[in-house]
Amino acid sequence: VLVAIAGGVGAARLLAGLVRAMDPAGIMAVVNTGDDMTLHGLHISPDIDTITYTLAGRSNPATGWGLAGDTFSAMAELADLGGQAWFGLGDRDLATHLYRTQRLAEGASLSAVTAELAARRGVALRVVPMSDDPVRTRLSLDPAGVPATGFPGIADPDDVAFQDYFVRLRHGVPVRAVRFDGAERSRPAPGVLEAIEAADEIVVCPSNPLVSIGPVLAVPGIADALARRRPDVVAVSPIVAGQALKGPADRLLRELGHESSVLGVARLYAPWAGSLVVDVADAALAPAVEEVGLHCIVVDTVMSSPGRSLELARRLLGARR
Amino acid sequence: VLVAIAGGVGAARLLAGLVRAMDPAGIMAVVNTGDDMTLHGLHISPDIDTITYTLAGRSNPATGWGLAGDTFSAMAELADLGGQAWFGLGDRDLATHLYRTQRLAEGASLSAVTAELAARRGVALRVVPMSDDPVRTRLSLDPAGVPATGFPGIADPDDVAFQDYFVRLRHGVPVRAVRFDGAERSRPAPGVLEAIEAADEIVVCPSNPLVSIGPVLAVPGIADALARRRPDVVAVSPIVAGQALKGPADRLLRELGHESSVLGVARLYAPWAGSLVVDVADAALAPAVEEVGLHCIVVDTVMSSPGRSLELARRLLGARR
Repeated sequence: VLVAIAGGVGAARLLAGLVRAMDPAGIMAVVNTGDDMTLHGLHISPDIDTITYTLAGRSNPATGWGLAGDTFSAMAELADLGGQAWFGLGDRDLATHLYRTQRLAEGASLSAVTAELAARRGVALRVVPMSDDPVRTRLSLDPAGVPATGFPGIADPDDVAFQDYFVRLRHGVPVRAVRFDGAERSRPAPGVLEAIEAADEIVVCPSNPLVSIGPVLAVPGIADALARRRPDVVAVSPIVAGQALKGPADRLLRELGHESSVLGVARLYAPWAGSLVVDVADAALAPAVEEVGLHCIVVDTVMSSPGRSLELARRLLGARR
Repeated sequence: VLVAIAGGVGAARLLAGLVRAMDPAGIMAVVNTGDDMTLHGLHISPDIDTITYTLAGRSNPATGWGLAGDTFSAMAELADLGGQAWFGLGDRDLATHLYRTQRLAEGASLSAVTAELAARRGVALRVVPMSDDPVRTRLSLDPAGVPATGFPGIADPDDVAFQDYFVRLRHGVPVRAVRFDGAERSRPAPGVLEAIEAADEIVVCPSNPLVSIGPVLAVPGIADALARRRPDVVAVSPIVAGQALKGPADRLLRELGHESSVLGVARLYAPWAGSLVVDVADAALAPAVEEVGLHCIVVDTVMSSPGRSLELARRLLGARR
């Protein structure tokens, strides 16, 4: 049994390799829900959907979000109405959010709804939200990067919802703090702690350490459970040659006082990860990673094709010390 | 200035004639919201949308609901997911509900959102919900018409939401009672009572007396305001030759102890309507209507084309005693 701590696109690619490298029924993906939001009254879970769509073979490779071949009639009409059309929701993608919102209103838990949606879409691995309780990633922007007039649609630059930062502002504004509202009162979703305890191996996907893996660790109990399994926790660095392959992980690391390198990632993960997988481009930093106390595995980590995802997955299986 | 008390399709057709017969800016449509519901987390206002779409020239004449030429990708996907796809929402139609739900969540009133949507769609008359407060039409089914196993998706046949009756059960089940949950605590939307008081004429559209006009009358203050203007209240019978042109009005009248005829309508409306417009098919009943105490106007009321709607509208203007 393998547990994967997961964010969005990078995690989805690795999971797509893992399901080919082992029995998918033995995989539990514990997914960040700090990016979740309520918009138009709908509960939207971007990372869960990215993973489910990818594993169902229906993700849009051009965007990293949404369904391949989807249409955007609802959004076009919403834009005509002057509504909030900044967060792109395809017509078929909308069905996911309609389904989830209705089921939650009926009293189902987010983990139950997530399992239903994954099953309906033929996803064989277990997709589990980090928590059934609301945890919301919020950011304080660096005042130096905020124009005197503020940003349209952003009421308080010191308290910005994640998708406002990520989509509205296209993560192009410096950040000075990240927090996870509701985390201290949240509980891990049913089965998560038990799975971490019983797993043969725990993989931390190449997702943003601060805003994808960070919220999962902020759910009380999960970081401790990982620390108890430290020798079996293998993390994949999302930073390659100092840069994020996608998204703002490199800038966020620097802005929040970390080093944007595999070494910065190693220092963040050292308390609970036994191994760090770094790309061949970072081979020279392997000794420094080992000095931080992590076993350093140097392989090709850039999953530019399904074949490369499978190869990385195979290297991870049994990679623990 | 003209006030029109309105349900859905029949009202929309008459309003489409009225806006051609007079200055649309002088018309306020006070619209039934007893059919409103929350589904998929979205606030859906079927009668308001039917009227707005029709007046915007975008209604689907084949169905009476939704937008002409709309697509149904979201619903197709929702059906694949096993979700609640029984209430058809087109992709562009969805934008209306997304917009409304988001604005309500932001604190806007239903009347403010309704005005925004009407303005954005270029509708010149004032479309006003009967109330900004939630009023929900609920029905008790006649046990004789309910199979021993009940109906799928209907938890309690004694407490059925309007759209469950109207759409899920295709209004094919006898009803023994109708009530308007929340009506006693509701207030008329801003401006409604003032408009009734000041109007030159008040038209009651050919809508279902019990479940379209009934909820409007159940909002405290509206029936009294109409009664004070009784000589200027002109109602159009939705019953022609004993039958409803559309929907279950004829059966509901019988099931709830009324006569399914213009006479049944006259008796229901007599406390607050001065005139009843009946179709030429019911000319023989005009004396009986007059006996109930209403001035009876016999014209062609079947709005089978825009020209017929305009003709009826012209006959109504100045038709009061």
